[in-house]
Amino acid sequence: MQKTIALLTDFGTSDTYVGVMKGVIAGICPDARVIDLTHEVNPQAIRQGAFMLLGSYQYFPAGTIFVVIVDPGVGSWRRSIAAFSDTYSFVAPDNGVLSYTLAENDIQSVTVLENSEYFLNRVSQSFHGRDIYAPIAAHLASGVSREALGRTVEDYVRLSNPRLTVKDEVIYGEVIHIDHFGNIITSMGGFEWQGENLQLRPRFMPINREIIFHADKAVSVIGAQTFEGIQRTYAKVSSQQALVMIGSSGYLELAINQGNFAEMYGIEIGMAVELRFNTR
Amino acid sequence: MQKTIALLTDFGTSDTYVGVMKGVIAGICPDARVIDLTHEVNPQAIRQGAFMLLGSYQYFPAGTIFVVIVDPGVGSWRRSIAAFSDTYSFVAPDNGVLSYTLAENDIQSVTVLENSEYFLNRVSQSFHGRDIYAPIAAHLASGVSREALGRTVEDYVRLSNPRLTVKDEVIYGEVIHIDHFGNIITSMGGFEWQGENLQLRPRFMPINREIIFHADKAVSVIGAQTFEGIQRTYAKVSSQQALVMIGSSGYLELAINQGNFAEMYGIEIGMAVELRFNTR
Amino acid sequence: MQKTIALLTDFGTSDTYVGVMKGVIAGICPDARVIDLTHEVNPQAIRQGAFMLLGSYQYFPAGTIFVVIVDPGVGSWRRSIAAFSDTYSFVAPDNGVLSYTLAENDIQSVTVLENSEYFLNRVSQSFHGRDIYAPIAAHLASGVSREALGRTVEDYVRLSNPRLTVKDEVIYGEVIHIDHFGNIITSMGGFEWQGENLQLRPRFMPINREIIFHADKAVSVIGAQTFEGIQRTYAKVSSQQALVMIGSSGYLELAINQGNFAEMYGIEIGMAVELRFNTR
Repeated sequence: MQKTIALLTDFGTSDTYVGVMKGVIAGICPDARVIDLTHEVNPQAIRQGAFMLLGSYQYFPAGTIFVVIVDPGVGSWRRSIAAFSDTYSFVAPDNGVLSYTLAENDIQSVTVLENSEYFLNRVSQSFHGRDIYAPIAAHLASGVSREALGRTVEDYVRLSNPRLTVKDEVIYGEVIHIDHFGNIITSMGGFEWQGENLQLRPRFMPINREIIFHADKAVSVIGAQTFEGIQRTYAKVSSQQALVMIGSSGYLELAINQGNFAEMYGIEIGMAVELRFNTR
Repeated sequence: MQKTIALLTDFGTSDTYVGVMKGVIAGICPDARVIDLTHEVNPQAIRQGAFMLLGSYQYFPAGTIFVVIVDPGVGSWRRSIAAFSDTYSFVAPDNGVLSYTLAENDIQSVTVLENSEYFLNRVSQSFHGRDIYAPIAAHLASGVSREALGRTVEDYVRLSNPRLTVKDEVIYGEVIHIDHFGNIITSMGGFEWQGENLQLRPRFMPINREIIFHADKAVSVIGAQTFEGIQRTYAKVSSQQALVMIGSSGYLELAINQGNFAEMYGIEIGMAVELRFNTR
Repeated sequence: MQKTIALLTDFGTSDTYVGVMKGVIAGICPDARVIDLTHEVNPQAIRQGAFMLLGSYQYFPAGTIFVVIVDPGVGSWRRSIAAFSDTYSFVAPDNGVLSYTLAENDIQSVTVLENSEYFLNRVSQSFHGRDIYAPIAAHLASGVSREALGRTVEDYVRLSNPRLTVKDEVIYGEVIHIDHFGNIITSMGGFEWQGENLQLRPRFMPINREIIFHADKAVSVIGAQTFEGIQRTYAKVSSQQALVMIGSSGYLELAINQGNFAEMYGIEIGMAVELRFNTR
């Protein structure tokens, strides 16, 4: 059966880096279908890459092999790993970029990539995407067993959890991504609508308290700006009006209907966001 | 036979939106070949998207399914449609983004996408590319019949025609696209060379008059600039010189040989362009 | 066997140009796998395109057909060619964009693309990627013989060699590419590590002298800046520190660990670089 290899990197597309990785894959596993998730993770922004994988992987067919490369430590002694769930495989530097996704999956095993038989013959010190990760993914797609790649480990790197804490009637989070439209995606993820109420069940972090509140009674704060209520859709406000909504992956988002929130309010990744729920 | 699905959106490639759509397609119709037309339509620029489709679709093989998403109304009550000609299928929000292309094709039927059986299980309010359009295209590629998707309609949304009028010896148009090289593409489309003359036959708009003129006698006006003559090719002028030509899709274009016209003259989409023909 | 067609252009991805080329290929050779090397060669920068091909092609499977379009002369009387080695085929305008790669390969023959039977029916004056190069590549992938495309020539265009000269104890080169991370790639290519020493064997240019030196004794000069030593990997310096290293394709590179060298020092393509070796 044809395997899918999905690529998520910070390599950009203005160089031939990504194309060369696909050439390497085509040489080892001609049958593999390669899909670009994106190559525009901010350079070396491991946490942003971790969130982008978390919001995407579950839409891919069973058997997909994800190659995730945000790798400020290339050429140092950081390890490379492959992680395996019932459904998916993940190949990446061992710097935590997989860790949010692994935390919400039932991971069967994690392998350190040690067997250079499955690397390119010459491994450079600065382009492991070409020399290690692309060939490993292609060999996995071709049926090489995970056991052949190296020994199993338990101690892979976990990122610290994103900012998401609750105190009294306030949820504290941060901006984790700004999308192409200028929409602000926050670390407050796991919201579900229950009629007019919203329930928060963070995806991979425990919160020892049930949080449920009426959407109209919430107030969101970013910088000096406050926004009342949480809407179901952009269309609930007029064109060029700001709104707060639950995005397509369950995260609290701030947007301007048919406009660019990030530009309008000068938002950057990492800025603090507060959600005061149960206000009157 | 392997089906082609072509994607044209304003999603950009800096997020995982497009990659996730491809993941969804791969899960439903593993055999489909997916081709990106572009994802850089200006955000929510429906008319620009309509022109980009019009200039592209005819180069694809019979059977291609086009997914066209420029969708400022996502989450409102705008409908979603699929349109079918003898040769192609088109899937899009019903906001007119298909209408220029449909106007020059013999359309057999237009279906409102109502049968949620062919959507993802959970449909968000802000990402119908993932939840509706990608799965519909993949199901069509897999052989699902158009009748299964919803009921047939006649009243789909048509955009107003682009600015293209003729009065006395002047054609009035507008800038509809600025390409990667800074070339200006105007709404004056349907030019054909007849020896040294040019004949105008707009592609989907009636003009109740025959227009034919000598290329050397035309004068183009944009802002405060005028340019004499229409050339067959960039090479007719020196490097860094401006010229007017008929582009590769039959539209009047303004360009600088090996330079950037848009930057040099500060051109923006929507600016008026005049073509005075039969001048002396 | 499924053929790979690799595309390298300056077309960008904000227009539908590249997508249309893929539509044309899909119509002629549905089985071909198309891989994008990049479409972000600087507009009309033939030499940059030539270097990008040189650093990439060898990672693709045997049989790959490369389509390389950086074409300031489109519509003039410049010729179009296809070149064939034992392993690869290359299709491009005859302006030298292939010449560095051809110089390091054993080329069997070069054909001028003259037989319009293998072009699209209507050939425009400004988009030969769609009308000539994409169809030629697809026909080659479908098994059309090279003899059918046109007559063999010997006098294809060669670019002048990049700046790479040695005098006394100094190698003189230039900046040939700045990558997505702001790393500076120079024309000094063909370095190999021999223990703590570096040996220079330029890939396609003769140097009538053996150059080998201790990496710690080298000093690199760009603009007013000097940098001591050549490192094996980014990790040899602290975060945000500049370093000189041998990149993943054997070229001398200047970089900042987890930073952007080009921005920090205002580097542009074409700037002179000196490497003083055997200093004390």
